[in-house]
Amino acid sequence: MSLPSTDDVIGYFKSLSNWGRWGDDDRLGTLNLITAEKRRAAAALIRTGEIVSLSRNIDPNGPQDPLGAGLGQAMRFMGIGEVSSHIGKGASRFDAVTESVFISAHGSNTHLDGLAHYNWEGQNYNGFSVDEHVNSIRGSTKLSIHDAGDGIVTRGVLLDIAALKGVPWLAPGTPILPEDLAAAEERQGVTVGSGDVLLVHTGHVARTLSEGVDPEHRQPGLHAACLPFLRERDVAALGGDCIHDVQPSGFETFELFRPIHLVGLVALGLWLIDVMELTELAATCAAEQRWEFFFAMLPWRMMGVTSSATNPIALF
Amino acid sequence: MSLPSTDDVIGYFKSLSNWGRWGDDDRLGTLNLITAEKRRAAAALIRTGEIVSLSRNIDPNGPQDPLGAGLGQAMRFMGIGEVSSHIGKGASRFDAVTESVFISAHGSNTHLDGLAHYNWEGQNYNGFSVDEHVNSIRGSTKLSIHDAGDGIVTRGVLLDIAALKGVPWLAPGTPILPEDLAAAEERQGVTVGSGDVLLVHTGHVARTLSEGVDPEHRQPGLHAACLPFLRERDVAALGGDCIHDVQPSGFETFELFRPIHLVGLVALGLWLIDVMELTELAATCAAEQRWEFFFAMLPWRMMGVTSSATNPIALF
Amino acid sequence: MSLPSTDDVIGYFKSLSNWGRWGDDDRLGTLNLITAEKRRAAAALIRTGEIVSLSRNIDPNGPQDPLGAGLGQAMRFMGIGEVSSHIGKGASRFDAVTESVFISAHGSNTHLDGLAHYNWEGQNYNGFSVDEHVNSIRGSTKLSIHDAGDGIVTRGVLLDIAALKGVPWLAPGTPILPEDLAAAEERQGVTVGSGDVLLVHTGHVARTLSEGVDPEHRQPGLHAACLPFLRERDVAALGGDCIHDVQPSGFETFELFRPIHLVGLVALGLWLIDVMELTELAATCAAEQRWEFFFAMLPWRMMGVTSSATNPIALF
Amino acid sequence: MSLPSTDDVIGYFKSLSNWGRWGDDDRLGTLNLITAEKRRAAAALIRTGEIVSLSRNIDPNGPQDPLGAGLGQAMRFMGIGEVSSHIGKGASRFDAVTESVFISAHGSNTHLDGLAHYNWEGQNYNGFSVDEHVNSIRGSTKLSIHDAGDGIVTRGVLLDIAALKGVPWLAPGTPILPEDLAAAEERQGVTVGSGDVLLVHTGHVARTLSEGVDPEHRQPGLHAACLPFLRERDVAALGGDCIHDVQPSGFETFELFRPIHLVGLVALGLWLIDVMELTELAATCAAEQRWEFFFAMLPWRMMGVTSSATNPIALF
Repeated sequence: MSLPSTDDVIGYFKSLSNWGRWGDDDRLGTLNLITAEKRRAAAALIRTGEIVSLSRNIDPNGPQDPLGAGLGQAMRFMGIGEVSSHIGKGASRFDAVTESVFISAHGSNTHLDGLAHYNWEGQNYNGFSVDEHVNSIRGSTKLSIHDAGDGIVTRGVLLDIAALKGVPWLAPGTPILPEDLAAAEERQGVTVGSGDVLLVHTGHVARTLSEGVDPEHRQPGLHAACLPFLRERDVAALGGDCIHDVQPSGFETFELFRPIHLVGLVALGLWLIDVMELTELAATCAAEQRWEFFFAMLPWRMMGVTSSATNPIALF
Repeated sequence: MSLPSTDDVIGYFKSLSNWGRWGDDDRLGTLNLITAEKRRAAAALIRTGEIVSLSRNIDPNGPQDPLGAGLGQAMRFMGIGEVSSHIGKGASRFDAVTESVFISAHGSNTHLDGLAHYNWEGQNYNGFSVDEHVNSIRGSTKLSIHDAGDGIVTRGVLLDIAALKGVPWLAPGTPILPEDLAAAEERQGVTVGSGDVLLVHTGHVARTLSEGVDPEHRQPGLHAACLPFLRERDVAALGGDCIHDVQPSGFETFELFRPIHLVGLVALGLWLIDVMELTELAATCAAEQRWEFFFAMLPWRMMGVTSSATNPIALF
Repeated sequence: MSLPSTDDVIGYFKSLSNWGRWGDDDRLGTLNLITAEKRRAAAALIRTGEIVSLSRNIDPNGPQDPLGAGLGQAMRFMGIGEVSSHIGKGASRFDAVTESVFISAHGSNTHLDGLAHYNWEGQNYNGFSVDEHVNSIRGSTKLSIHDAGDGIVTRGVLLDIAALKGVPWLAPGTPILPEDLAAAEERQGVTVGSGDVLLVHTGHVARTLSEGVDPEHRQPGLHAACLPFLRERDVAALGGDCIHDVQPSGFETFELFRPIHLVGLVALGLWLIDVMELTELAATCAAEQRWEFFFAMLPWRMMGVTSSATNPIALF
Repeated sequence: MSLPSTDDVIGYFKSLSNWGRWGDDDRLGTLNLITAEKRRAAAALIRTGEIVSLSRNIDPNGPQDPLGAGLGQAMRFMGIGEVSSHIGKGASRFDAVTESVFISAHGSNTHLDGLAHYNWEGQNYNGFSVDEHVNSIRGSTKLSIHDAGDGIVTRGVLLDIAALKGVPWLAPGTPILPEDLAAAEERQGVTVGSGDVLLVHTGHVARTLSEGVDPEHRQPGLHAACLPFLRERDVAALGGDCIHDVQPSGFETFELFRPIHLVGLVALGLWLIDVMELTELAATCAAEQRWEFFFAMLPWRMMGVTSSATNPIALF
């Protein structure tokens, strides 16, 4: 298969578009593909009751940026001795600890990208104009993370590309091509279908924690050539232990710096789950010899924002 | 039934204690009651695939404190034009919007209380010493919200006390007694059991949004007399559209300002879900004539904190 | 004297303009009027060495909004036991306390308004285009508070309008007219001149702390009719225990909600000092029977921002 | 001169102590040495009216930690289009830009250290107990930066140690000894006296910006042997383009990691000004051949904190 050119990828904005598919005011994009029937079917995948978290720990004290991508940090401000501070030390046997939390939402923690995160020629998914609906005071008013406030609960499928290649992790800069996705499906005996959450295991988070950040900031990930696959299979959300886009992307123009993010969010209305922790999931799938499971991710219902720090799970 | 005295409630620290029950170093408390078997059984409750979010929207622009309890706010700081800001306006057809978020974690949003939130005589659940494990730099190191990082996934049961009393909401200050819980179970034909998440519908959030904050800051909620019920039934977590404790609590001493929080968190190791949105859930349960459902809450995996803003769901 | 009409005030954008006066790229506006000679002359006003701070205390625990204007708050996050947290309690006789601080910069604290704060038809002072120079990532790049980073050090003059009227504070909503400024000059035997910082004492902060916020959110302050006075006298900065503009402003159009801010910042390039504490200064001036003094305000040198929380002083 | 031993330095807590000197409840420490008479005399040093800022720019986008000391950052959150966001784009010709600011107060910006910053055996200056007066809710209640809210306005003296040694900057790790201070006084024809702010020019900020951070994180600065000099001369505050303490300090025990900070703040009650920008000041002093000037630093009046980001100036 030959790789798409720059013009081909820009052509995807039209050829792969979901604009208008679910109505002119639709804000859910590919989450429309998750029906009650789909959730019911996913529930049937719960057999052992075993649960695996797919989120990294958020450690304000620790190294926070496992991808070396310059992603922002979380901070934690403790309030210790809340009661004694008000009424005097020793005045009460009861006391409390609280905190406030500061999160750079598209940061190094596992998070959901909402549809207002990227735009092309000033337009978000379904043609919403950034100039018209985004402002500093009210945030992203038309496409917000709270649109996904009923959660992403559906069948999850893991395609383990590292296992396909027989390595613990893909080398930085390795592109994943559509034929790799097809080969993984065949090897695992699973088929990605409409309304699924597709998770891609590259081993990249584990590699960086073990080997350190790649000095050239390369990352493995999907090549833009995978975009038609995502549209044809009608994936509801894409997640991975990476930022999805192979880096560098293989395109010279800066505008195609991250084509999976760009075309995925804008044209497909495809929700993305960045920087997941998939090591334990890959091991569990291999041990159970099944790569499909009940998946749940419950983003916070915050209005006017483009992301949510969130903890997705797989339930077997 | 006569109500417990101050001494009786302080006696609960011993008589209802779960300290040591799951080992001297246990940090999970009542979440130990949720087994893989329990999750499997909960999955069998998924029949229609209908989903109901149990979280309030978090609106940084809106009135944020529906309980009038002086709870803190969430803030949102938008980063608009991230790409054009770096390379010049008009230089790229592609652009991005991001944000950072500040959350007063025990604030007016729906949130999970972790076991380090309250202490008695300097001790948290299972005897962990606040002086030893909590500090400003590393937070609450021994009992942290990320201990619940695999999520709270189990059977949920709603006891609808407002419906029991035939009102849309309980009047501010109304105590809920053990006999009310028993009457609701009988009326609904449901029994709260080990490992369940118990949700209590008072209508209080809806009342405050409709009628305004009670000028005396009273709230309906559980009387301390319900603590033995929570322990006997081995509830895994307690949630409600209130802050659980009837306010005022009915005890003169400030130390028993919030006995459900205090004895629940410290003695039982009971996780609490504050300020939920339960109006739609109550309506769905009534329409379906069933008050049990698959429940999921997936707190963020942040280390060293006592809370998580989180979005719980019910799946029917 | 008849009051200016809406059209008259909008005409001030042209008739009172300082655009181009100090060059097309000038970013200092009226601070150009403070010369080394002016500072030398101000130094000659230092006679007793007595110092008076003109800033409110910033109390994160206290009522923070004395003007009832919905102005934002400062927050303080303590880091206690920084050393013991790293190496263990009791391991060092030496320990440290630190904090981080969050400031809503145009908030209820005494602060300096920079020239990028207000714009008219998309233009700031001297014609800088907001679209071109302000963005979320780099802030206000052409007009920033750090342009005033060498401080505002000059002669200060207090006009005590409350004393002129024989009251401790002006009633909320009282407009100050040019003839009031002239009468105060005559009463006090002082003349406002080029490069001076003009401070106006209304008593409004003191009134609000004593009487509470006016339920209609009225404030005393300068009427737009004072704008020609500010331009003719070539005032370098305007400060007061108010937000300068009488509220309501007396104009029906929302666009003239705060004409002193708007025409002052945009047309004159006039720096403003909001929400000062002037009670002690007024008393000192009256006791000394002089209303001129050495004035210093040293804003932080933060790049890309429109304000600075700052502590101005008078030195006698 | 032989250097003091560990025991000698710990002996300074007693021998150099100012505890009780200005009363048992004194919170000002060495700022008591700045009298009205002292300020009057300082005013006589204003001759040319030339002003030099002694603060670094705070650039949230830039490299923020010139000392490579792991010091925290400032953040800026812009609010663009405040008016149009509320009433709709294009509805008003008038609009506003605001921001909020987050400051890690003991960070890489020029800042004042208050007397609660360091403690020894749980005690701050004058014997205030950290356990009793510092808590997370109300901050440092007895010793706070707002105690210096009337500003530090006095005579400033620069001792230019880099010029003394004939270098643009001292090599990282170079200790400054009392004889260096004396030699600089003699070379410059100036004597440090009671109530002065002493500024020490090492060139270290300039060096780091030019050469990069020293890989061993060494810094030039005062050796603990200078502590008696600071006490004998009755310096009111100590500032420098460094963090005062030579790093490493020359003492093996961690407790004497930073003896100038520790003994200065705790025993002397000496206020410290960290991370100043002194390049221009050194050049101006050399050009004018005078190393004394009118000095002003006006910290914010924030209650309960141990520091203030502030912009000090020299006025010639």
